[in-house]
Amino acid sequence: MNILKSIKHLIEKAGIEFSDSKEDLCCYGFDASKLESSPSIIVWPKSTADVLTIVKLSYDKNIPIIPRGAGTSTTAAAVPKQGAIVISFERMDRILEIDTGNLTVIVEPGVINGILQKELSLKGLFYPPDPASMNFCTIGGNVATNAGGPRTLKYGVTGNYVLELEAVTADGRVIKTGVKTVKGVVGYNLKSLLVGSEGTLAIITKIRLRIIPEPECILTLVVTFNKLDSCAKACSKIISSGIIPRCMELMDKGAIDAVEKYSSIGLCDAEAMLLIELDGNYHAVKEEADRLAEICKNEKGDIKVAEDTISRERLWKARRAIAPALHYIASTKINQDIVVPITEIPNMLKFLESLSEKNSIKIISFGHAGDGNLHVNIMVNNDQEYKKGHSLVKEIFKETLRLGGTISGEHGIGLTKAKYITMEIGPYELGLMKGIKKLFDHKNILNPGKIFP
Amino acid sequence: MNILKSIKHLIEKAGIEFSDSKEDLCCYGFDASKLESSPSIIVWPKSTADVLTIVKLSYDKNIPIIPRGAGTSTTAAAVPKQGAIVISFERMDRILEIDTGNLTVIVEPGVINGILQKELSLKGLFYPPDPASMNFCTIGGNVATNAGGPRTLKYGVTGNYVLELEAVTADGRVIKTGVKTVKGVVGYNLKSLLVGSEGTLAIITKIRLRIIPEPECILTLVVTFNKLDSCAKACSKIISSGIIPRCMELMDKGAIDAVEKYSSIGLCDAEAMLLIELDGNYHAVKEEADRLAEICKNEKGDIKVAEDTISRERLWKARRAIAPALHYIASTKINQDIVVPITEIPNMLKFLESLSEKNSIKIISFGHAGDGNLHVNIMVNNDQEYKKGHSLVKEIFKETLRLGGTISGEHGIGLTKAKYITMEIGPYELGLMKGIKKLFDHKNILNPGKIFP
Repeated sequence: MNILKSIKHLIEKAGIEFSDSKEDLCCYGFDASKLESSPSIIVWPKSTADVLTIVKLSYDKNIPIIPRGAGTSTTAAAVPKQGAIVISFERMDRILEIDTGNLTVIVEPGVINGILQKELSLKGLFYPPDPASMNFCTIGGNVATNAGGPRTLKYGVTGNYVLELEAVTADGRVIKTGVKTVKGVVGYNLKSLLVGSEGTLAIITKIRLRIIPEPECILTLVVTFNKLDSCAKACSKIISSGIIPRCMELMDKGAIDAVEKYSSIGLCDAEAMLLIELDGNYHAVKEEADRLAEICKNEKGDIKVAEDTISRERLWKARRAIAPALHYIASTKINQDIVVPITEIPNMLKFLESLSEKNSIKIISFGHAGDGNLHVNIMVNNDQEYKKGHSLVKEIFKETLRLGGTISGEHGIGLTKAKYITMEIGPYELGLMKGIKKLFDHKNILNPGKIFP
Repeated sequence: MNILKSIKHLIEKAGIEFSDSKEDLCCYGFDASKLESSPSIIVWPKSTADVLTIVKLSYDKNIPIIPRGAGTSTTAAAVPKQGAIVISFERMDRILEIDTGNLTVIVEPGVINGILQKELSLKGLFYPPDPASMNFCTIGGNVATNAGGPRTLKYGVTGNYVLELEAVTADGRVIKTGVKTVKGVVGYNLKSLLVGSEGTLAIITKIRLRIIPEPECILTLVVTFNKLDSCAKACSKIISSGIIPRCMELMDKGAIDAVEKYSSIGLCDAEAMLLIELDGNYHAVKEEADRLAEICKNEKGDIKVAEDTISRERLWKARRAIAPALHYIASTKINQDIVVPITEIPNMLKFLESLSEKNSIKIISFGHAGDGNLHVNIMVNNDQEYKKGHSLVKEIFKETLRLGGTISGEHGIGLTKAKYITMEIGPYELGLMKGIKKLFDHKNILNPGKIFP
């Protein structure tokens, strides 16, 4: 405890805001996974220099550190190890530069994704990655988990937009990796190694992102189906037809019902629903919409176009409300974000349906059907169901991998999936990853316990 | 020598084609950098199992190995260390799968980029990365160097299309990294680490690429300018106007003259020229072309549209002929592929002009102006000029970095740029890279001598 006291003293001396109040230790001890643990101190650095000071102190005293964005991780990637120092990026939330000539933006890690989106939109610019939590989650967290979102289908994930990173290493060095430009092949790609490393390799302190011009026109369509299978087939046919929607979101009946119960948005009474957006040139969008309607009609889909911004916003509100709405269906959800090749979505949904029936347990699926990323939620109400639900996770992952998929599309591994990582990653490859972790952080002080089993 | 004899014997016993004839050792000892060195054996594996056999033998006997595509590297990345075993991928050149439902393709490393392009086009599909050497270079080489090309501007580099890799490690393990789908965040991104590692971390044996639908329409325009500066300004204005051409290639007067001398294609007598392509929906392309013409006219550019496939092909033939054509201007070119932020292109070109004048040495620039990637060629005719030319490289790199650029956009580091890498990469970051190299290849047998100074 004397070590902690001396650290607090030094942090105070360095003029860095911190807290060890019970309330703060509680609030910064959990994330969207609902797991929790108590850190020893929360610090709010205002600059890279502050982060450096904190890391150096932690390194000297072997105290684990965990960088924290908004705590929206569903895999407990942001749950601190007991007694760790939490570095919250709430005070490092500035957009430092918007370069309209070179189409790049520099941000501090604490910038909220949705705020960046809005700022850019004012200038006719666009940063595509849009996790469902975009109104809360931070760019730093997005980079650390290589976050996706609906628009990944057309525009790719966060990593596709990261140009340059500044980060602080475990032993207290400020490193720079990547370049200002889209091209650059000097040395190994350390940047892509940091992206998605969940704060285990270095602490990101500055980010340069690539941005693009805002598309001229967006068209939002809702297609409802009487069969989940027809819905899945329509997805697959749309993709192989050559149309790349900006996003194509699937909701099964369970998800539709949950949203209705939660917010009475007035969706529909269908078995499945697609929320599709096309964007780009006005004429191009119109033509694609016609082709898309044709495909959906062949699968007996019923198509409605969101005529104005208000109805569009309402639909997205519904889509983003699914995750919280599920809490109205059952007390707990065991939530996984698997990905399967698009052509395997019908098979995966069939498998989930039969698994649900066989085990008399509700499974609600929704997600980014256009890129094969499904959020599968096992709904449980009591201990017995919880246990049973967890036993199904392994079966779902097995089927996912058998179909050529991956056990995490955008939520990462964190704590909750660490025990499953060897289902997907071979022992030799995992050994290489552990070697990299050791190279960057030989004392294992950066977000320890995450990713590796 | 007895070691080599025994290796040859074992390779022969394994039924793997090989040669140690003088002619072959000569032909496989150099690449487009014109540097050369003599390997001891060339092997032509037909499968991953063959590669594994060769690597295990080499590892046991500490003999360096170098994987080789088509030898189009301009940085000597494919020049073997004296006495090394060259693994040529000429017999591993099959397109193994084109998955039209999931928009992916699996290829062996020896597949020629241009052949893949053609095969995909027959199915209405598109693999964007198009290095100027696309009719010769291999996908394996493209992945190993993270190759770019003109279309990077709109579509990104090779790495943006690599989904999954199979590779053989130095100690003889077959590893798999990446996933079949666009999303996937399980463990560290080893895939992106292998991409661009120039054969120094593992030997790539199978590649799954993401492909996209072929655009509906392509429009090719040539814009000529009486001033290089106006041309550079037009580039910059086009990008910040929100238009993203498929490509935007710049040629200065030296490059135009060289091509004319080489092939009498009938270009023009201008000081600078832009070759611009727009693609996508027919109406969208038409609208963008009008806006683009307006911008170019404001910079006094003279615009011509390539009306048919023949005239379009002629223009691209001219563009791709620049590199060979330069040999008609001077006996040797010292060729660099710097990148600067797009807004700095005018400044970079001014700097090169004054450097050329001050040193009475011809410098010819061309390249992918749309993404800031310039190929700068110092033209030299004798030893004295060669020496002087090389002394200018450092000055060009200094200015490139001062303007916020990078010293290699798509050619990599190889042997020829290894001595300059510390100008861009800090000592700590370089130490991390060396640590990664050691982790993957502790005996330093994979393409030794490359990247690191």
